[in-house]
Amino acid sequence: MDIARTIERYDNELINSVIPFWQDHCVDTQYGGYFTLLDRDGSVYDTTKYLWMQWRIVYMFATLYTTLQRRKEWLDIAVEGFDFLAEYGKSEDGSYYFALNRRGEPAMAPFSIFSDCFAAMGAAALFKATGDERYKAEADSAMNTYLRRLDHPRGRWEKSLPGRGCRLALGHYMILANLGNVLADCLKTDEYAAATADAVDMVTNRFWNPELQVMFEHINRGGGFDLDSCAGRCVTPGHGLESMWFILQYAEKHGRTDLIGRACNYIYGLYQFGLDREYGGLYYFMDALGKPHLELQWDMKLWWVHNEALIAALYAWRLSGEDRFRVMFEELDAWTWKHFPDPEYGEWFGYLNRRGEPTHLLKGGKWKTFFHLPRGLLLCGEQLRALNERDRAE
Amino acid sequence: MDIARTIERYDNELINSVIPFWQDHCVDTQYGGYFTLLDRDGSVYDTTKYLWMQWRIVYMFATLYTTLQRRKEWLDIAVEGFDFLAEYGKSEDGSYYFALNRRGEPAMAPFSIFSDCFAAMGAAALFKATGDERYKAEADSAMNTYLRRLDHPRGRWEKSLPGRGCRLALGHYMILANLGNVLADCLKTDEYAAATADAVDMVTNRFWNPELQVMFEHINRGGGFDLDSCAGRCVTPGHGLESMWFILQYAEKHGRTDLIGRACNYIYGLYQFGLDREYGGLYYFMDALGKPHLELQWDMKLWWVHNEALIAALYAWRLSGEDRFRVMFEELDAWTWKHFPDPEYGEWFGYLNRRGEPTHLLKGGKWKTFFHLPRGLLLCGEQLRALNERDRAE
Repeated sequence: MDIARTIERYDNELINSVIPFWQDHCVDTQYGGYFTLLDRDGSVYDTTKYLWMQWRIVYMFATLYTTLQRRKEWLDIAVEGFDFLAEYGKSEDGSYYFALNRRGEPAMAPFSIFSDCFAAMGAAALFKATGDERYKAEADSAMNTYLRRLDHPRGRWEKSLPGRGCRLALGHYMILANLGNVLADCLKTDEYAAATADAVDMVTNRFWNPELQVMFEHINRGGGFDLDSCAGRCVTPGHGLESMWFILQYAEKHGRTDLIGRACNYIYGLYQFGLDREYGGLYYFMDALGKPHLELQWDMKLWWVHNEALIAALYAWRLSGEDRFRVMFEELDAWTWKHFPDPEYGEWFGYLNRRGEPTHLLKGGKWKTFFHLPRGLLLCGEQLRALNERDRAE
Repeated sequence: MDIARTIERYDNELINSVIPFWQDHCVDTQYGGYFTLLDRDGSVYDTTKYLWMQWRIVYMFATLYTTLQRRKEWLDIAVEGFDFLAEYGKSEDGSYYFALNRRGEPAMAPFSIFSDCFAAMGAAALFKATGDERYKAEADSAMNTYLRRLDHPRGRWEKSLPGRGCRLALGHYMILANLGNVLADCLKTDEYAAATADAVDMVTNRFWNPELQVMFEHINRGGGFDLDSCAGRCVTPGHGLESMWFILQYAEKHGRTDLIGRACNYIYGLYQFGLDREYGGLYYFMDALGKPHLELQWDMKLWWVHNEALIAALYAWRLSGEDRFRVMFEELDAWTWKHFPDPEYGEWFGYLNRRGEPTHLLKGGKWKTFFHLPRGLLLCGEQLRALNERDRAE
């Protein structure tokens, strides 16, 4: 594997394909905020402003500004999005709506705490980029809303009743591990250190099932796994792999070497479990015991799953030095780059069928925005550079 | 086309494959109610009791008892399910929960009025089978709950806010057209005649778009279509086709010959629009203008879509006498029977990818139960018999 050429490929895709696509098409110059429902060529097919998707763009452009190049036009995009979202996005109790319409009027209730999570990340990245205290204030406010809601994340929109059993969802804790990293880095605070450490502990000790070597999406609130239900058996390899590079990032930063070997093993286990040995790529949803899935799209291949798996492979390769992660990266890299990039209009397709053929040509949607792909390209570039420097030093 | 042999094929599948599969596997003799999450061989992979799925079994076994054969074991299954659901299924305000756990404890809140709809249908079919007044009382109660909730169907679980625009959903009105038919037939009442006529009018006059020749899933509450949003452009050919045989059934019964030609044209339009000309079969979700779909599973081929399309083709063929509906039936019949039946364990697969390969081997799930398939086989048999008798009379 030629690391230098791989770095060039990742850098080039980020700088000359993905960033320009969004820079050119996502900004709503009339009302503020962003268009995220973008067709293959960047044309807008729906103007709803989903807050997860909006705040992730703020986060990503601000982060590119602080890590890649200090280009004013990137910062401006982030700042203008922030202004729109901070003005229109917040409901009465301080939590962010799920969606606004184009003009900024509330379109969907604040039923998801991930809106608050991505608001905190976006605002924190802007504070790092500018030092402006109002971004720090917004990041703290959104973070505190996230933490306050964590125990009952869906609030009055919760449909589960006690007969279903109380479950905890991996998503809420894995994202907190990342959110804690981002806030500590951007705000230079240790205010959320305890909450972050708790989340890291939850993910590594409670959601991982050592017997089956998988990370579950849901565990019983009181502890343990519910292998008699579909929800209890559900495994999302992409989520597990994403959470494991969050853990490796945390472990490296905090000198928690005890976590590194474990997280690397989990990454390898999840990769082996999630791999489609017939058509290649990673499945979206799986059943830990091979029973039927309720999700119709379980066997589809999604861009973000592959972005996160690539980051996880490189983190594990660099931190463990084990060759199996080089192999994992090379296998995933080959499949991903063969199937996802759009040779005609740039950016990547998001949704492929099991065979790797695109089922959708959209570049942005209700769940796809300027986030997993640019973050993946950026972080893979960073990890590859570190590997390359070590190679040359040796 | 040999109608007599086709009848034999439909009858045989219903009586010797589909009914025995559910009769053998769905009854929970320990707690009451049914298992509906059944794997390929009938084994149970989750014991949650989803009320739509439960009540549809009551309806179907009671209906088979009154229409096919008066077999006591079928009636017993329906009666025992009713007892369980009437005892445990109802929330404080009289609406039915979305799900119970195996023991009958509430597991998911009553956020869906379709639970009430299928309760009304199940109880009404049992009244027709037995004449027992308690079933009529339950049917009336559930029907009144349905009608009462129709204006705000999701109640306090509604996530939409005014910025999204107020929309009406086809599902709520098309099902009322059918529900009205079933209640009039089973309860021998004209109490719901006005509500049924309104629903028929809504479906045929407001959800159909004459310019694009499609039936929309959502229309603006104040009238008209929202072609700027994904939800506004969404077309579900299976829903449209199902609603059209409801309309034909209604038109025939009420001598509304004015509706017959229109509904037949809609059926043909939806068939042409929904057909996958590359791999065959009907798509699940479509965008009226060919823009991207937010639903990942839009190109999958679902059993119920094909069951409903077959019924619609036969109704249209019989009532219009037009040969294009014979062709439609033969094309659909060939594709459906080639891909859905499970040759090894009986019953049908529910979910195929675009190519027609099963993505799931389950026979029952959160959305698949003993309903569309047996109803489809039963009604196709009835329509084919009527066509055959007319043939012989001529």
